[in-house]
Amino acid sequence: LRRPRVAVDAMGGDHGATVVTRGAVLACRELGVEVSLVGPEAALREQLTGVDAGGLPIAIVDAPDVVEMSETVSRATLKKRSSIQVALERVRAGQADAFFSAGNTAACWTIAKMVLGTLEDVDRPGLTAVFPNRSGRTVLLDVGANAQCKARNLEEFAVMGSAYSRGVFHTSSPRVGLMSLGEEPTKGSELTRDVHEVLKASSLNFVGNVEGHDLFTGKVDVVVTDGFTGNVVLKSCETLAEFMIDLIREELMRSARTKLGAWLSQPAFREVRHRSDPASIGGAPLLGMKGCCVIGHGKSSVRAVVNGIRTAAEFFTSGVNDAIEAELRSLGARKEAASA
Amino acid sequence: LRRPRVAVDAMGGDHGATVVTRGAVLACRELGVEVSLVGPEAALREQLTGVDAGGLPIAIVDAPDVVEMSETVSRATLKKRSSIQVALERVRAGQADAFFSAGNTAACWTIAKMVLGTLEDVDRPGLTAVFPNRSGRTVLLDVGANAQCKARNLEEFAVMGSAYSRGVFHTSSPRVGLMSLGEEPTKGSELTRDVHEVLKASSLNFVGNVEGHDLFTGKVDVVVTDGFTGNVVLKSCETLAEFMIDLIREELMRSARTKLGAWLSQPAFREVRHRSDPASIGGAPLLGMKGCCVIGHGKSSVRAVVNGIRTAAEFFTSGVNDAIEAELRSLGARKEAASA
Repeated sequence: LRRPRVAVDAMGGDHGATVVTRGAVLACRELGVEVSLVGPEAALREQLTGVDAGGLPIAIVDAPDVVEMSETVSRATLKKRSSIQVALERVRAGQADAFFSAGNTAACWTIAKMVLGTLEDVDRPGLTAVFPNRSGRTVLLDVGANAQCKARNLEEFAVMGSAYSRGVFHTSSPRVGLMSLGEEPTKGSELTRDVHEVLKASSLNFVGNVEGHDLFTGKVDVVVTDGFTGNVVLKSCETLAEFMIDLIREELMRSARTKLGAWLSQPAFREVRHRSDPASIGGAPLLGMKGCCVIGHGKSSVRAVVNGIRTAAEFFTSGVNDAIEAELRSLGARKEAASA
Repeated sequence: LRRPRVAVDAMGGDHGATVVTRGAVLACRELGVEVSLVGPEAALREQLTGVDAGGLPIAIVDAPDVVEMSETVSRATLKKRSSIQVALERVRAGQADAFFSAGNTAACWTIAKMVLGTLEDVDRPGLTAVFPNRSGRTVLLDVGANAQCKARNLEEFAVMGSAYSRGVFHTSSPRVGLMSLGEEPTKGSELTRDVHEVLKASSLNFVGNVEGHDLFTGKVDVVVTDGFTGNVVLKSCETLAEFMIDLIREELMRSARTKLGAWLSQPAFREVRHRSDPASIGGAPLLGMKGCCVIGHGKSSVRAVVNGIRTAAEFFTSGVNDAIEAELRSLGARKEAASA
């Protein structure tokens, strides 16, 4: 088995090339992956001089242009030699197995669609968030790629999310839930009522409608929703987690007693941050593309970059994309047979 | 100034009449409110014997029927002598100023609409959640009463949420945000694009589109969204907050060092739970009804019931409903003038 090769957009993320380069070097050292670090060659060469990368399988690939975090998608797609585009082209050309960027999410997703295209039978790829739950991981999609969805899109999300949960988290028969206002199939929107029927008739392990609670209860492994709801939920939860940790820090600093308590409690807090931090889980896979793309948080730290590269490598080695294609093909065949 | 009179559904909530009764007694003692405790008379009399309610302005009002937490709305509305209905009838009859229940949310909201009706010019009342943020409170509506919304509904939510923030939290000019996927007006759904235009043209202090993050950043005082998104966000955040506190507890119990740390840190944790717990904020006001209705969480503790009753009383004394009617009337007049 050869090492997974990950093309990394060195210019993505709020903290710039220094953090991404350090993360990429650590990933090579810790994970046994090969990295091509894509960005302006001279700048990256300078970054690498500062770190000990001797003997590691890390190569610089030149891409002179940079897509800014706040740049519009239409401008970003005009930069044909951007680090995002060049890194994705390496995946298309078979020079890399997977792509990671902590850059402009909308630009990554649009350029990936242009460069790689979607898997056969996929109408809309889904951006996927992974939440910690009481017993494992909950996969939620879509979290922002598709603000408006049709029933067919959520059906695809369910197939793709199941394949991802099975391939990467080794869930034997992923339980799929449809995000709604209550468990009753009649509650919710027109879309959820349509999707409920479609998923009930599918061969997936559909457990029915779920509520916001169930992202964290461990009742389901996969939750499907439209990209509007998914995006708002993801961002609310991210910020609430930070807010609570800040609140705790603030309160602990109020007295000598609690300051000592805080010091003694440090190992526990470190573990909580690790278990609840999306960075430790490692980026959002973009499911449904011809290729394995993972998009990290703009705020990604060095550790988050390492974990994002790990996620990209696992996405590739788990064979999720083959499973998605096979399942969508058999779904299409079943539908054709049913309508014949 | 006479004391606000709150009609309390004694039978609501997962913990039943004992918890609600204790909360109601405490509310009378601490808040200077009058309570009518509504439910099966004999049972409530027994509850009250167990607690020291001597001399407090608390009266039992008989309602023989009980709406179960999981009962369907259509069945619940048939129970014409339910504690929910009888309590709401006291508000309609002017025997009470406000209503509080920790019971079946959908039943409360539907029966309130039937018994009290909506304020003049209100198309759809909005269930409102109050989130703690870095500098105060963020009011979010709708959180579940209206799964599908038109632009007009979100405009009303913005007016009602502003009136509530001003009346109850004394925000002088509440900043209103429209929940979307990004700050750009073009991002989002068809609904958000329509609502953006409507709010921009309004006399509200509309600051533009916001993201899930902004529930906790303190950037805005009021966030409007459709009831589907709002409900999913509210439930996700509630459960994430519990999940994080459980994680912390679990990690703190792992070693003697962190156990001692936990003991010393207790005052800080108590304060964090207090500041982040929706129970301490006290229930969801239902804005747009002819009357002041507050619905508490099914899991409400005694303290949460006290705070819910406080919220109901403040809702009444703040004159929010008069402000809503006045603003919607002048909004209607402006629209009429514009179209003439």
